Amino acid sequence: MGSSFGTLLRLTTFGESHGDFIGGVLDGIPPQIPISIEKIQSQLDRRRPGQSKVSTPRKEEDKVHIGSGLLQQDQTQPYLSLGTPIGFYIKNKDARSQAYAKFQDIYRPSHADYTYNAKYGIRDWRGGGRSSARETACRVVAGSIALQTLQHLCPNIKIVAFVQQIQEIKAQIKIEELNEEIIESNIVRCPDPVAAKNMEQRILDIKSKKDSVGGIVRCVCLGMPVGLGEPCFDKLEADLAKAMLGIPATKGFSIGSGFDSVYMTGSQHNDPFVFENEQVKTRSNYSGGIQGGISNGMPIYFDVVFKPTATISQIQQSINENHDSVELEAKGRHDPCVVPRAVPIVESMTALVLCDHFLRQQAISIKR
Amino acid sequence: MGSSFGTLLRLTTFGESHGDFIGGVLDGIPPQIPISIEKIQSQLDRRRPGQSKVSTPRKEEDKVHIGSGLLQQDQTQPYLSLGTPIGFYIKNKDARSQAYAKFQDIYRPSHADYTYNAKYGIRDWRGGGRSSARETACRVVAGSIALQTLQHLCPNIKIVAFVQQIQEIKAQIKIEELNEEIIESNIVRCPDPVAAKNMEQRILDIKSKKDSVGGIVRCVCLGMPVGLGEPCFDKLEADLAKAMLGIPATKGFSIGSGFDSVYMTGSQHNDPFVFENEQVKTRSNYSGGIQGGISNGMPIYFDVVFKPTATISQIQQSINENHDSVELEAKGRHDPCVVPRAVPIVESMTALVLCDHFLRQQAISIKR
Amino acid sequence: MGSSFGTLLRLTTFGESHGDFIGGVLDGIPPQIPISIEKIQSQLDRRRPGQSKVSTPRKEEDKVHIGSGLLQQDQTQPYLSLGTPIGFYIKNKDARSQAYAKFQDIYRPSHADYTYNAKYGIRDWRGGGRSSARETACRVVAGSIALQTLQHLCPNIKIVAFVQQIQEIKAQIKIEELNEEIIESNIVRCPDPVAAKNMEQRILDIKSKKDSVGGIVRCVCLGMPVGLGEPCFDKLEADLAKAMLGIPATKGFSIGSGFDSVYMTGSQHNDPFVFENEQVKTRSNYSGGIQGGISNGMPIYFDVVFKPTATISQIQQSINENHDSVELEAKGRHDPCVVPRAVPIVESMTALVLCDHFLRQQAISIKR
Amino acid sequence: MGSSFGTLLRLTTFGESHGDFIGGVLDGIPPQIPISIEKIQSQLDRRRPGQSKVSTPRKEEDKVHIGSGLLQQDQTQPYLSLGTPIGFYIKNKDARSQAYAKFQDIYRPSHADYTYNAKYGIRDWRGGGRSSARETACRVVAGSIALQTLQHLCPNIKIVAFVQQIQEIKAQIKIEELNEEIIESNIVRCPDPVAAKNMEQRILDIKSKKDSVGGIVRCVCLGMPVGLGEPCFDKLEADLAKAMLGIPATKGFSIGSGFDSVYMTGSQHNDPFVFENEQVKTRSNYSGGIQGGISNGMPIYFDVVFKPTATISQIQQSINENHDSVELEAKGRHDPCVVPRAVPIVESMTALVLCDHFLRQQAISIKR
Repeated sequence: MGSSFGTLLRLTTFGESHGDFIGGVLDGIPPQIPISIEKIQSQLDRRRPGQSKVSTPRKEEDKVHIGSGLLQQDQTQPYLSLGTPIGFYIKNKDARSQAYAKFQDIYRPSHADYTYNAKYGIRDWRGGGRSSARETACRVVAGSIALQTLQHLCPNIKIVAFVQQIQEIKAQIKIEELNEEIIESNIVRCPDPVAAKNMEQRILDIKSKKDSVGGIVRCVCLGMPVGLGEPCFDKLEADLAKAMLGIPATKGFSIGSGFDSVYMTGSQHNDPFVFENEQVKTRSNYSGGIQGGISNGMPIYFDVVFKPTATISQIQQSINENHDSVELEAKGRHDPCVVPRAVPIVESMTALVLCDHFLRQQAISIKR
Repeated sequence: MGSSFGTLLRLTTFGESHGDFIGGVLDGIPPQIPISIEKIQSQLDRRRPGQSKVSTPRKEEDKVHIGSGLLQQDQTQPYLSLGTPIGFYIKNKDARSQAYAKFQDIYRPSHADYTYNAKYGIRDWRGGGRSSARETACRVVAGSIALQTLQHLCPNIKIVAFVQQIQEIKAQIKIEELNEEIIESNIVRCPDPVAAKNMEQRILDIKSKKDSVGGIVRCVCLGMPVGLGEPCFDKLEADLAKAMLGIPATKGFSIGSGFDSVYMTGSQHNDPFVFENEQVKTRSNYSGGIQGGISNGMPIYFDVVFKPTATISQIQQSINENHDSVELEAKGRHDPCVVPRAVPIVESMTALVLCDHFLRQQAISIKR
Repeated sequence: MGSSFGTLLRLTTFGESHGDFIGGVLDGIPPQIPISIEKIQSQLDRRRPGQSKVSTPRKEEDKVHIGSGLLQQDQTQPYLSLGTPIGFYIKNKDARSQAYAKFQDIYRPSHADYTYNAKYGIRDWRGGGRSSARETACRVVAGSIALQTLQHLCPNIKIVAFVQQIQEIKAQIKIEELNEEIIESNIVRCPDPVAAKNMEQRILDIKSKKDSVGGIVRCVCLGMPVGLGEPCFDKLEADLAKAMLGIPATKGFSIGSGFDSVYMTGSQHNDPFVFENEQVKTRSNYSGGIQGGISNGMPIYFDVVFKPTATISQIQQSINENHDSVELEAKGRHDPCVVPRAVPIVESMTALVLCDHFLRQQAISIKR
Repeated sequence: MGSSFGTLLRLTTFGESHGDFIGGVLDGIPPQIPISIEKIQSQLDRRRPGQSKVSTPRKEEDKVHIGSGLLQQDQTQPYLSLGTPIGFYIKNKDARSQAYAKFQDIYRPSHADYTYNAKYGIRDWRGGGRSSARETACRVVAGSIALQTLQHLCPNIKIVAFVQQIQEIKAQIKIEELNEEIIESNIVRCPDPVAAKNMEQRILDIKSKKDSVGGIVRCVCLGMPVGLGEPCFDKLEADLAKAMLGIPATKGFSIGSGFDSVYMTGSQHNDPFVFENEQVKTRSNYSGGIQGGISNGMPIYFDVVFKPTATISQIQQSINENHDSVELEAKGRHDPCVVPRAVPIVESMTALVLCDHFLRQQAISIKR
């Protein structure tokens, strides 16, 4: 009971890494929204394994099969949402469970083997089972539909995530200079071409040492409507934080000034309001586009940190289910750095949160 | 619709800062749990305004009135929970709305005046209305009940929060050396007496400059049961992150290695399993006590950053509801630093999350 | 965990019959709705004990104290909703717990004493505790606010409940002839004056025999917007059924043709569509205003049956907590027939359901 | 947003009648429960179209494909639940959308065509789209899993539904004499062989007149644990009522004495407690096994009424989307009486409700 996300727009996912298929249901998309299957597939392709030398070589076509919720009047028309739940599945094709057989009774360090066993008394050891990040493919399907819905309803909205930092290498880029083509032009998905090169080199170095590395994904939301977020507990940043910490391998979330705010004073940190071009704005944006839990129309930006991939090819010490000490050495396929593939996942979860809150706000925005 | 928190243990709060009273309902506490009203009041006292020279001088008795859900067989017996919802209220006594009258149509910088107006088209300007942190008193009432429940069910559990950092001043303290008496012995609630002194001095300096400051609260959970947390979306750290980012003035959350994990490799970051004293443990604890979204029995520790208080006594620039530029100068009562008072709030939200997940885990832990 | 009701408009109640106070929180009322406290009080008065010789003599003022969620700009203005949760309480004044002391360890027949004990292992025996219908006063407060909201948003909507049947005595009245003044002019709240007289006489007869009786409440919703209801599980009639069976002492719910439909064929039962006065209507209305779980604009009408009051003044056989056979004889105050007092409760729950679904429909009714 | 059902055990369904596939996700089944796919398929077969001359001739294999949540250690072992969500789909094979093309812009009487159009502004006209009862196949899959789980946890529990009444023909049968083999031995699923014959004949008569008929399904739950149900709003009978009124074509629900209680007095209706065979029982059972919203261990029994099938082969009057009067004559395949096929659907929804409440009760039943 933790596989659903959202209030008015709710995604429910299912699936283990090496089962026959994974999938989900997205309930709450308003009717009559044009949805492009190609756009969904193209986001899936950005998350797909095997896309570059910094990702796992597992080959998955990741073709989504949608069974409901969309109607195409004829083939010259786009699919339109029906207002009914959108159900879909994706087949697991390149599962090589045999590679995991020898770890069947071993608790791999910093994986979820031990905790799943302790919680459920049973676990699907094949490819990590439900704890595998394979499940996030379903979030990308749903996130793309949510984003298309949002952009249909608020044509100016834009959600752009990218790799901000790998070890000490940081992208030097201003929010207003973000260029999605540059982000997509390099395999680490970094908007700063110099940093991108260094990051790529660093990841390959670490990979060659049979090690792994994490990084920081930054996400920016532009063209935001004012008024999204539901105090006190469902503040917009609270729901974003939950969405991000629910992505596998994340260790932290910060919004606006984030942890740097600890070094500032109120007079430095307060964002003065101004009225410019017929819009209420703030001169600085340490708030990160959210005040009192509600969007203020300024860009929302936040960071999510991903730990280094737990699977590494080095020999490691651990214990097995009988509590004996064991040595293990992964030969399976894995990512030296998951962060570039995490970019579309962060965008997807963000779209789900924003679209849900957009609908929640519509519910009370009644013309009188 | 954002004033409820939790799944099986659910807190619903209400109340504006200067209304007649604030309050809440806590539904889901199991029956037959002994609950001490004194303990609730004592946590409330730790959050209460006017407790020291680093907090606001507003005087509120903050006495909680509980109307239901508890039964005392006779006066020699403790109150026992009935399994029915616990409803309570706290009166607002020292509200001085007049101090806010002049800001009635002004958007105070980095407050929620503008966003509440934009969202609802109406707002209670008196003392910040619903956006005031006064609402968190209700969380402390509920959090104390949740903590007493947890401790009745898992006698070893302990939740200890404290001030870890004010500007560059950091507490130098190991988790295993935490001492609650030291924390409570100084007005900043810092477990490191040297740092505590420096923090206090720093806050008073900043207060004397009519400015404000934030800080980092660290929270540690000891004696944790294994198996709490509900993948994929209700991971334990995801619900903690939501709980923390829902507290007013927070800008970030990190767990275990947090943002520092960006500098590490997998071989450094992985926590090797060992079996010691008949318990599965990990040699290091960069995971922060949670793996795959589920508690592993090691200490949970996480950081929450609070921005500098938005209300300062300096003259500031802003605009009013007509979009005219205005100057404002707060004469109201406010905290130069909210972080010491935030300590019991962080503990309370943590207790609510852990108790909720404890019950969720009980639901599926059926003896067969 | 069962004290909350609704999705976008959510009522949470608390309170035992003889505690200090009962109350609730209504979260989700849109902002800027004018709310009259007098109207709330007047619905409460219709539910209040002691209002006539067919109801219990317990004297409760039932004055509602609202602490939040409403703002009055000045005393010439109505209260307006703030969009924040509305918290309230009602004191229990005329609790005479002593009358219940002798039943402290007895399971009164067809009461909830045994099941509360079995479920929780503890119960508040004073006045039935949480199982007392006293809790429904909170539903009436919330229902009146929901109704005022609905009527502000859809000025034509009307919710009228009344007593349709006591034993074999039935009101002979057509929906289109309903007159609220007649309903309120007699103490049984029956719209048919002849039946009303007979019902009143019947109840007094049964009361004089130290016995009790139930009855059927019919509820009619006129001026309904089209499109409310959320298939497949949250069909409008499904949520109404849940709302009604959640009222104490109810044993059944039927909508439109109800159980009589068993005697009809499809050709008799189908409601032919017609277009009249620029409106889609149906010539008959066996559907009861709902088709496929969604309102079709025709009047919604449904019946709710209430069993005879379980408390009677006769000697009854039962057992106590030690499983010994006992005789009991109630001397407490009780209603010979709760049905007239149930009328505003049925209206209140109906208003909560319709207002919730109105908001849910607004969420997806986006102007494009 | 109405396609999910349940609190701790939650079913989410998707699918239109003539889409590629329908399916669902069942989240919350505890781990380590043996689940038989054959039993699921056998309940599906009881619901399947084309099973007899009193049901629609549409031919659907209705084979369920389960992709997750179950693990078979090896082929000699049963499938065990993993504690993770169970995702599944069923293909739509014998959809003949062409038969519906001529009704594409017509509002069929007492169908959901008009209300879906009014609510969503778009609808899938093929086979009724989402409003088709085809969706209930997913409920049967989930219900069978819920029932197997319940029976694993409470081996004595039994849920038996049957056809109690078709027009004036009633089954004459006592609860304690129910025999599932007799129920399954006749095509109307009636436990009284004489009534069964008459019902079958009546349905065929009505079918021959190109008409349809409804009926009453009775459901009995034996071997019930005490203590299930969550006052005040999630009373056990309230959740059962919602579950039943959410099944297509239902018009009413009654529990225990139901609508007949209107003719009784309290002294007749009260169920006296007795202690027999080491168990608390009631001598009569007008309460229907639930008191104060909580199961008391006595048999739960309730009735659900289904209206006559809306699709009939006679010429009917209606209007189209342009509001013109039209005549329509169904040539499609349809059930003269859905009630026999509704029997496993009623059982399935009952199992979902009881299993959900069983888990909710476990959550608070903590050994101390």
